[in-house]
Amino acid sequence: MHTPPRVGMVGAGQLARMSHQAAIDLDLDLRFLAARPDDGAARVSPHAELGDPGSAADLARFAAGCDVLTFDHELVDLAALAELEGGGLVARPSAAALAHATDKAHQRTRLAAAGLPLPRHLVTTDPAAARALGDELGWPLVVKAARGGYDGRGVWVVPDGDAAAEVVRQLSGRGTEAVCEERVALVAELAVVVVTDPRGRHVAYPTVETVQVDGICREILVPAPLDAAARAEADAVARRVADVVGAVGVLAVELFWDGERITVNEVATRPHNSAHWTIEGAVTSQFANHLRAVTGLPLGRTDAVAPAVVCANVLGAGHAPRAGLADALAVPGAAVHLYGKEARPGRKVGHVTVLGDDLPSARRRAAEAVAALGQPVPEPS
Amino acid sequence: MHTPPRVGMVGAGQLARMSHQAAIDLDLDLRFLAARPDDGAARVSPHAELGDPGSAADLARFAAGCDVLTFDHELVDLAALAELEGGGLVARPSAAALAHATDKAHQRTRLAAAGLPLPRHLVTTDPAAARALGDELGWPLVVKAARGGYDGRGVWVVPDGDAAAEVVRQLSGRGTEAVCEERVALVAELAVVVVTDPRGRHVAYPTVETVQVDGICREILVPAPLDAAARAEADAVARRVADVVGAVGVLAVELFWDGERITVNEVATRPHNSAHWTIEGAVTSQFANHLRAVTGLPLGRTDAVAPAVVCANVLGAGHAPRAGLADALAVPGAAVHLYGKEARPGRKVGHVTVLGDDLPSARRRAAEAVAALGQPVPEPS
Repeated sequence: MHTPPRVGMVGAGQLARMSHQAAIDLDLDLRFLAARPDDGAARVSPHAELGDPGSAADLARFAAGCDVLTFDHELVDLAALAELEGGGLVARPSAAALAHATDKAHQRTRLAAAGLPLPRHLVTTDPAAARALGDELGWPLVVKAARGGYDGRGVWVVPDGDAAAEVVRQLSGRGTEAVCEERVALVAELAVVVVTDPRGRHVAYPTVETVQVDGICREILVPAPLDAAARAEADAVARRVADVVGAVGVLAVELFWDGERITVNEVATRPHNSAHWTIEGAVTSQFANHLRAVTGLPLGRTDAVAPAVVCANVLGAGHAPRAGLADALAVPGAAVHLYGKEARPGRKVGHVTVLGDDLPSARRRAAEAVAALGQPVPEPS
Repeated sequence: MHTPPRVGMVGAGQLARMSHQAAIDLDLDLRFLAARPDDGAARVSPHAELGDPGSAADLARFAAGCDVLTFDHELVDLAALAELEGGGLVARPSAAALAHATDKAHQRTRLAAAGLPLPRHLVTTDPAAARALGDELGWPLVVKAARGGYDGRGVWVVPDGDAAAEVVRQLSGRGTEAVCEERVALVAELAVVVVTDPRGRHVAYPTVETVQVDGICREILVPAPLDAAARAEADAVARRVADVVGAVGVLAVELFWDGERITVNEVATRPHNSAHWTIEGAVTSQFANHLRAVTGLPLGRTDAVAPAVVCANVLGAGHAPRAGLADALAVPGAAVHLYGKEARPGRKVGHVTVLGDDLPSARRRAAEAVAALGQPVPEPS
């Protein structure tokens, strides 16, 4: 009997939950380290064990039962992980790759050294340096905590030198560097999801536009409604980022487009919201390709199966998403995914994907379904 | 908190396994009555309980924890189920609907009474009557056990009167009627999967051709490569069958096409092999639509997302399917589904779906992937 590798996923949220669905197709042996018994994946898989992903002991215990470790989030003790790797554990992505996602200062430094296009920036703990950078580049300035932020948290847009200095001082007091950078005059935010196999070969999904509101992604438009040259440039930049980061599995590269130039915003070394559309909308989903990559199986085709695909996030509103499920499913072609999470306001609790012939009509239908389930998608500006 | 209905599925094989995947998307509460702890769905869901679906006591115990009961197979004690329904249980499909799938004599009688096109046939326990029918219609004759057959078992093609009489005598001795019928001069076997909501409204998937070898379905071709009028007639016949059967959820109608006339072969009141292609190939999968139907949610669109879709079954060969997984996934666009079953020769242990622009190329790729996983698909004749 051919035994599959035992794959352990650290974390059991919605990315793990959707990974479980993909693992079933390939009869893979996928188990989860869940922080809570009601985590999204723990509620639907018989192979979740409880533990704290931030605890070195829990991580070691979980890893001992696995042939390869992968991740549904980056809130992992990287030093502990690196030590386990030193002892022979296969982590995909590795601790070294994960560091690009957990530490924005490290990411900026590494990508700059590789010559990748970035917003003008400075990594610093010095309030005066932040003030000087803003005076040079112009206000407002963007200040990001190097570690600990997500979904818009840990990012400040500061109007002047006093505010910049204050944020840097506070971050420094918490032992965290600040990444200070120009505010890019955005035409669009883009994302490219690259999947890398253990031999370093990439496939990439089409370049998408991620429509953000208050730092939270609300919609993904596939393909990004830009000229083809801009999409191709985004793809090329993302593949170069993937070479630098060296993450086996899914790497999401978030990008800025100012109408002339692509620059790198963030990277995530795991399945990513910007590719949830691939479940219905691409030949191979990001979850299937992530699992194929981490188990050394051939990667699958990444092309879209429809001329237009829209994925809209469901954010918690004043009612359970399920209360609106019948109305959402009455929208023709709306593929609904609920994560089994309590619908706290602003929390991502699901998404809806619609395939169509053109973006505007797909977008309308996705928005209609989302409005039934949670917060309405703001009107396109 | 809006609580979803507790849906109990009797049986935990591959249909249950794929239903679990679909239930996760909608955050439905789906549990399984599994005959064995290593059943396909029991291996991937935390909500499987052990029991014998054929035991009235086990069925009653399982049903007590559910708001609605549904089925992954028809090997259920229908009298016990009907009694539970009398006590208030909601079964979708009902025992009355299931009887059309478990009893071919009942199915033939009911469909004939409704004026549906059937092969010329006779339900009998009299060997002499079978002999007389063959003499009238011509030999060979097809003799089917009214109850207990599946995947080609329980069906005999008999060359002459002595053989016909012998089969009918044996069936009669086991207390089973024989359905004796003309052997249709097949151009193709077709299937139409209809989904019915609790108010009796139908949606139907496109008419497909099912390529059978030795009574086992090897390939599904979507759409069936026939003229549109024949496909439309198949669709119309299947919807009329659905009205007669009255099964809430998925109903598969298997049909014969002799080049001039559509006749009804078999019906199955559950998700069906002939619609596994819908997971990747249709806007809404049969599993999602079955669950939507049994929980009273709106049914989803049934159209295909590609001009051609081919689904080929993986039959057990001399090795575990997983041993060929890397080779199968190397075939561009091959979506592999393994059921987690031991690969006994001839047993369906998985399937492969390929979307394409035309049937011949999709068929070649599906066959290539299947050959890596199990028995090769015989060359099209």
